[in-house]
Amino acid sequence: MNAPSHSAQPAFTLERQREVVAALNRVLPDGCVLFNEEDTRPYECDGLSAYRQLPMVVALPQNEAQVVAVLNICRTLKAPIVPRGAGTGLSGGAMPIADGVVLSTAKLGKILRVDPYSRTAIVQPGVRNLAISEAASAHGLYYAPDPSSQIACTIGGNVAENSGGVHCLKYGLTVHNVLRVRMVTIDGEIVELGGESLDAPGLDLLAVFIGSEGMLGVVTEVTVRLVPKPQVARVIMASFDDVVKGGDAVANVIAEGIIPAGLEMMDKTSSRMVEPFVRAGYDTEAEAILLCESDGIPEEVEEEIGRMSEVLKASGATAIAVSQNEAERLKFWSGRKNAFPAAGRISPDYYCMDGTIPRKRLAEVLMRITEMESKHGLRCANVFHAGDGNLHPLIMFDANKPGEFERAEAFGADILELCVQVGGTITGEHGVGIEKINSMCVQFSPQELEAFFAVKRAFDTAFLLNPDKAIPTLHRCAEGGKMRVTAGLMKFADLPRF
Amino acid sequence: MNAPSHSAQPAFTLERQREVVAALNRVLPDGCVLFNEEDTRPYECDGLSAYRQLPMVVALPQNEAQVVAVLNICRTLKAPIVPRGAGTGLSGGAMPIADGVVLSTAKLGKILRVDPYSRTAIVQPGVRNLAISEAASAHGLYYAPDPSSQIACTIGGNVAENSGGVHCLKYGLTVHNVLRVRMVTIDGEIVELGGESLDAPGLDLLAVFIGSEGMLGVVTEVTVRLVPKPQVARVIMASFDDVVKGGDAVANVIAEGIIPAGLEMMDKTSSRMVEPFVRAGYDTEAEAILLCESDGIPEEVEEEIGRMSEVLKASGATAIAVSQNEAERLKFWSGRKNAFPAAGRISPDYYCMDGTIPRKRLAEVLMRITEMESKHGLRCANVFHAGDGNLHPLIMFDANKPGEFERAEAFGADILELCVQVGGTITGEHGVGIEKINSMCVQFSPQELEAFFAVKRAFDTAFLLNPDKAIPTLHRCAEGGKMRVTAGLMKFADLPRF
Repeated sequence: MNAPSHSAQPAFTLERQREVVAALNRVLPDGCVLFNEEDTRPYECDGLSAYRQLPMVVALPQNEAQVVAVLNICRTLKAPIVPRGAGTGLSGGAMPIADGVVLSTAKLGKILRVDPYSRTAIVQPGVRNLAISEAASAHGLYYAPDPSSQIACTIGGNVAENSGGVHCLKYGLTVHNVLRVRMVTIDGEIVELGGESLDAPGLDLLAVFIGSEGMLGVVTEVTVRLVPKPQVARVIMASFDDVVKGGDAVANVIAEGIIPAGLEMMDKTSSRMVEPFVRAGYDTEAEAILLCESDGIPEEVEEEIGRMSEVLKASGATAIAVSQNEAERLKFWSGRKNAFPAAGRISPDYYCMDGTIPRKRLAEVLMRITEMESKHGLRCANVFHAGDGNLHPLIMFDANKPGEFERAEAFGADILELCVQVGGTITGEHGVGIEKINSMCVQFSPQELEAFFAVKRAFDTAFLLNPDKAIPTLHRCAEGGKMRVTAGLMKFADLPRF
Repeated sequence: MNAPSHSAQPAFTLERQREVVAALNRVLPDGCVLFNEEDTRPYECDGLSAYRQLPMVVALPQNEAQVVAVLNICRTLKAPIVPRGAGTGLSGGAMPIADGVVLSTAKLGKILRVDPYSRTAIVQPGVRNLAISEAASAHGLYYAPDPSSQIACTIGGNVAENSGGVHCLKYGLTVHNVLRVRMVTIDGEIVELGGESLDAPGLDLLAVFIGSEGMLGVVTEVTVRLVPKPQVARVIMASFDDVVKGGDAVANVIAEGIIPAGLEMMDKTSSRMVEPFVRAGYDTEAEAILLCESDGIPEEVEEEIGRMSEVLKASGATAIAVSQNEAERLKFWSGRKNAFPAAGRISPDYYCMDGTIPRKRLAEVLMRITEMESKHGLRCANVFHAGDGNLHPLIMFDANKPGEFERAEAFGADILELCVQVGGTITGEHGVGIEKINSMCVQFSPQELEAFFAVKRAFDTAFLLNPDKAIPTLHRCAEGGKMRVTAGLMKFADLPRF
């Protein structure tokens, strides 16, 4: 996405910058403190490139003791800190603060241990997601969460955003696959959260920490769960002449008690967008295409593919194809996996939203998004993790045409509000960051936001760790931001009871 | 367990009691405020009956508005509150405070909704665990966590203690089966945590709340996940002539990639204790008996039972029996399920501990517990959730013999310390409560305990909600309590790295 930069004049004096740089240089090795614009430029945004901000300083600690030292300096000098992994996040969680320090985990990249017996790995935060699976591969194991950025994104960033992937319906999100986090608080203290047993005594701070977007501490070590590589995986590609039937088919598969390894849906706009690009053999006449994957031992996969095919047929599928080998399986997936580049091919810019809805509202929400296309005068392709109810609408626009970026933003905000209205949430797996902070006012009551702040304050009284991300102040909500508080926000208490 | 009561003289004046009673009577209906000793006596302890304390007042609100009113009164009058479900907890989490109010959820017992489509139920906190499954039964669904007290215990108590059960290896603990909690803060505000989608935006306060032992708020509504009742379940009973082989068999089953519906182990002391009582057909010559259950569709169960039998044989099982029908399955389980009453039959008193260890240390820990029997001069039977590494040593003693209660307590503390030493934890599923508060000093560093307190303060600045439970003050740890800080406590950072 290419849109107006939010950059401004430096918000700090040269004296201030020199003070912070000098203090950091005393505790970090040569080349680990960056402050010249040509060196800090690569850190000005993450994957949400519409929001840019040069940081005052970038610090690159090489070990935990240096992380402690950096945090002690920032606390003493009252410099805000933005922790950063690979910068692949899509909600601006790693966008720098003008007068702040970016703490990059790039030099904390060691895999400390792979233990095939307990099926765990202990890694530093800068280790790439895929590198864990590569290291575990010799033991027939892998790390399950697979965000589409898995080649580049780091486990530290995955912990910050509670990342998912196409297999999280069956294998869970980051929070379900991380057993322990070792982290440094803003007070420079080392705290371990969680452990290898099923339940840890005391409060479950591990789950709070995962997905806290760098607001509670800086990760220095992560213990992840490893799972056996499935012996075989096969995928069904099913066509539907009606999105309602496709949406119902998703609900029917789950209602049958099947948890597919992946359950993805694409609408006609999406399949017509990707097919010329990838030649995956998609049915471009279908209103909806479902991809349903099964993995495991061959007998289980055979049985599950059979049951899913029956359910899809009974739900009105007009065509069904089952991958006959690994090459065909990858071909079927190629369209889904290349939807973003395909959008980039047919539209100068696109905006990928991320919201979650109850599965049973899928068809209705898709139809309402179609209606919104005319309201905002923009096209929207829908590719999504249907099994989780996690939508990824791709809003296409041209940033060079006046007003189109703003219309794309308004379209996205409308979709998120719709998600909340039908009982869903404003984010599925991309986090809140800076992008969706106003939508949080729609999702949560002032009391609920205050509960978040109370926990934030418990870890970071001075609000130095990634401030102004993820949780909006009540003042900000009251001012309205981009979204208004929805009068019709349904709470469970308002729903009819039996 | 029958042991010296910790009761003392009333810690409040009659004027104070009258003040609190009068205030509560203004907001609660007749009969919902108890203060005479004959009325409050049933609330003096929970399942950890060695610890007793009469409360000043018992409040029984009938709806959420009354819960809000009770909390507002307690906050204003600075009266500490102990929330209470059915009082079946085993760690004293619901033990009253002498000058405090017990807030019982007994009258919040409505099942508000069962939704077979989304496979969820919304219930009030006083609903019994088993009642949820009974209500869902018509739809072929049930609520999976099954603590042994499930006939009596309430979902509110399950949320407070993050309860497990024999099936939690496959189906998870309470935290994995609760989607949403609606609760009232000490400030009288209503907050909803979690939701029906896979990931909720903002901090994951639901996971912190579950297992927080009544310290963060009072539950008024719970949305639970329901799962399909398995078509069939079968159990393997396997004998081993050596606990080391039995322990290794557990690890081998898991290493094979099988997640049994239940994987339980009993040592010879336990099987000899229960067999005369239940006549389950247990091999009383075996040093260890394993029960391995499989559930699901018939083909899956058949296949899994076959694979588990192979692994158990290869691990050295001396005898294997597979249940041929439901009656036989229940018979095989009857010994395990009646271990506690059986202990009560052969010993005047027993003390059930609850600790968790890495599965690979099972055999070693069992042998060290055997050594401790001579040190403390008491017998100990071991029945446990082997698949989770969750031990339940039953220490047998006679409270009427001077010193035996104290020796049982010391034995238990030694076992918990051993759990921590081998990389485990001081509780598996019973919570910390008052029983294990000193062991928390062994488990956690001062920095980690401070992180717990920071979150506690974030929700309850005045420390009115179940104070002095679950988290020890550093002062208490420094004073030593029953357990000392172990010099040899292993932290991950100290372990060898590859």
